[in-house]
Amino acid sequence: MDTTEDQLLAAIARVLSDDAPDVVVGVGDDAAVVRPGDGDVVLTTDALVEGSHFLREDAAPRDLGFRAIVVNVSDVAAMAASPRYALAALTLPADVEAATVMELIGGMREACTEYGCLLVGGNLARGRDLTLAVTVVGAVAPGRAVTRAGARVGDALVVTGELGAAAAARRLPRDPSGWSDDDRAAVRRAARPPARVGEGQVLARHGVTAMMDVSDGLALDLTRLCRASGVGARVALSDVPVAPSATLDEALGGGEDYELVATMPSVEAVGTAAEELREVFGTAITDVGAIAEGEGVRAEGSDAFDRLEGVGWDHLGP
Amino acid sequence: MDTTEDQLLAAIARVLSDDAPDVVVGVGDDAAVVRPGDGDVVLTTDALVEGSHFLREDAAPRDLGFRAIVVNVSDVAAMAASPRYALAALTLPADVEAATVMELIGGMREACTEYGCLLVGGNLARGRDLTLAVTVVGAVAPGRAVTRAGARVGDALVVTGELGAAAAARRLPRDPSGWSDDDRAAVRRAARPPARVGEGQVLARHGVTAMMDVSDGLALDLTRLCRASGVGARVALSDVPVAPSATLDEALGGGEDYELVATMPSVEAVGTAAEELREVFGTAITDVGAIAEGEGVRAEGSDAFDRLEGVGWDHLGP
Repeated sequence: MDTTEDQLLAAIARVLSDDAPDVVVGVGDDAAVVRPGDGDVVLTTDALVEGSHFLREDAAPRDLGFRAIVVNVSDVAAMAASPRYALAALTLPADVEAATVMELIGGMREACTEYGCLLVGGNLARGRDLTLAVTVVGAVAPGRAVTRAGARVGDALVVTGELGAAAAARRLPRDPSGWSDDDRAAVRRAARPPARVGEGQVLARHGVTAMMDVSDGLALDLTRLCRASGVGARVALSDVPVAPSATLDEALGGGEDYELVATMPSVEAVGTAAEELREVFGTAITDVGAIAEGEGVRAEGSDAFDRLEGVGWDHLGP
Repeated sequence: MDTTEDQLLAAIARVLSDDAPDVVVGVGDDAAVVRPGDGDVVLTTDALVEGSHFLREDAAPRDLGFRAIVVNVSDVAAMAASPRYALAALTLPADVEAATVMELIGGMREACTEYGCLLVGGNLARGRDLTLAVTVVGAVAPGRAVTRAGARVGDALVVTGELGAAAAARRLPRDPSGWSDDDRAAVRRAARPPARVGEGQVLARHGVTAMMDVSDGLALDLTRLCRASGVGARVALSDVPVAPSATLDEALGGGEDYELVATMPSVEAVGTAAEELREVFGTAITDVGAIAEGEGVRAEGSDAFDRLEGVGWDHLGP
């Protein structure tokens, strides 16, 4: 590291000099002070760790910073809330240059701008793995946060966008000379996944009963949603929206797509929500099945995926 | 790791099943949802990283968890705010057992209970360094957060408690057979430092003009406070409260003591605050100097510390 902590913090503070009326104290004091206004406050934290979530030699620092914010904003989106503030605790190996740190911060700031939140605080520490531990604070009208626990038997089951691109990008050879256009699109999307903030709020306005983001794969995440709601689900595998370069397996188990999986009270609600999502955001939603009695997720249309439990990706697995 | 992420998260959720009226959604959904009520919201994040802040073989996991919360609560205390909610992003090496994780969480929960906040969210990831990246959310009456920037020429300069114990504990031989009672007290304090939450609020009631916590050593932190306020300071070295087992050098430059350094509008305000702090918390405050014109911190009473700038501990130094 070619600068002191204070020099780097001063450089960061200059980049972050947001002059927002709801930020009373920004970067540079013991803590940030904000005025989120009336409503419930949504809190989430998630980290990107070198070796586990990315390899330093493969990832552009600006993309990493962007993604570290998005994975948290996606959790806020899944509550049908709006992201407002972000904090970042960075762990920096000794060989990371100050310019790289500024790129990481720059990417975080880009994502914050895109999703309407402000980077108001952070911390720098020394460690072996480059780590971006981010917290995002969101806001939602009182009692309007959407949990995983509200799905009811008979609800329609929808997912936004397409699944599997992140897994497809991980599977591609590192040499890009043989990549197709779809492959390149998958790699771009994996580097800078979208967070479905506006989409989550539209689904909420159309009566969504339960929602979560697909960070660990549809199979595992849907199993979690069903468990939280005390219901089961059936999924028509032929209806699952698979990204062009991905396989069904990658769409079901790959993870890191950050689309939303949601349950809707009726097929009519799905139709009106789909229309608004297409018009406002250009985002498709796909009806992939329904909530059913019992436990677990039953797949229709393939012997290989008769029951989807355990297909997802366990962060602490071997 | 001998359990899956979901099993571990379920075990953690059972430990954290706080039934607080201001927690709408606790651990286990995409994000937590809380109702902090009226007032300004205080946000801070800080990480403890193996190899940088602790060695795994030296630190009891329960103490580590406790300390990870305290270092953040201390930042909230320095704003004269009350800690309310905590989130923890843990990075776990593969050889960390589930029982150790439960101890880490148990220590975090102990600190949360002690300082009146609730552990409402978290995340688990895999990495080489055991890392506890914690965010604490606090609350303070609108406009009442105390920054580093309000010190005025002529203000009295005070510190709570005693300084240097953490540095003294780091310097001791690992073999405890030769430790004095004071040494043992320093080691205990370093393992579980206090956060001066109530003290910060008392100082605020008595008119504190600027405040911060002493995490990087009095010399460096006071230099930061002076820079933020656009003033200088003089410190009477013979008045600095040095912990029994520590040296003056350790008290000035050691860091990690988590006492408060504050500026008060008058010597009378110091007297009345001192009385209340002693009666309510049994905490001493010591008048160590005054805010002066100019820049930097001038030490009185020693040639060796004529100017204190740069004595503190830089997290990103070599």
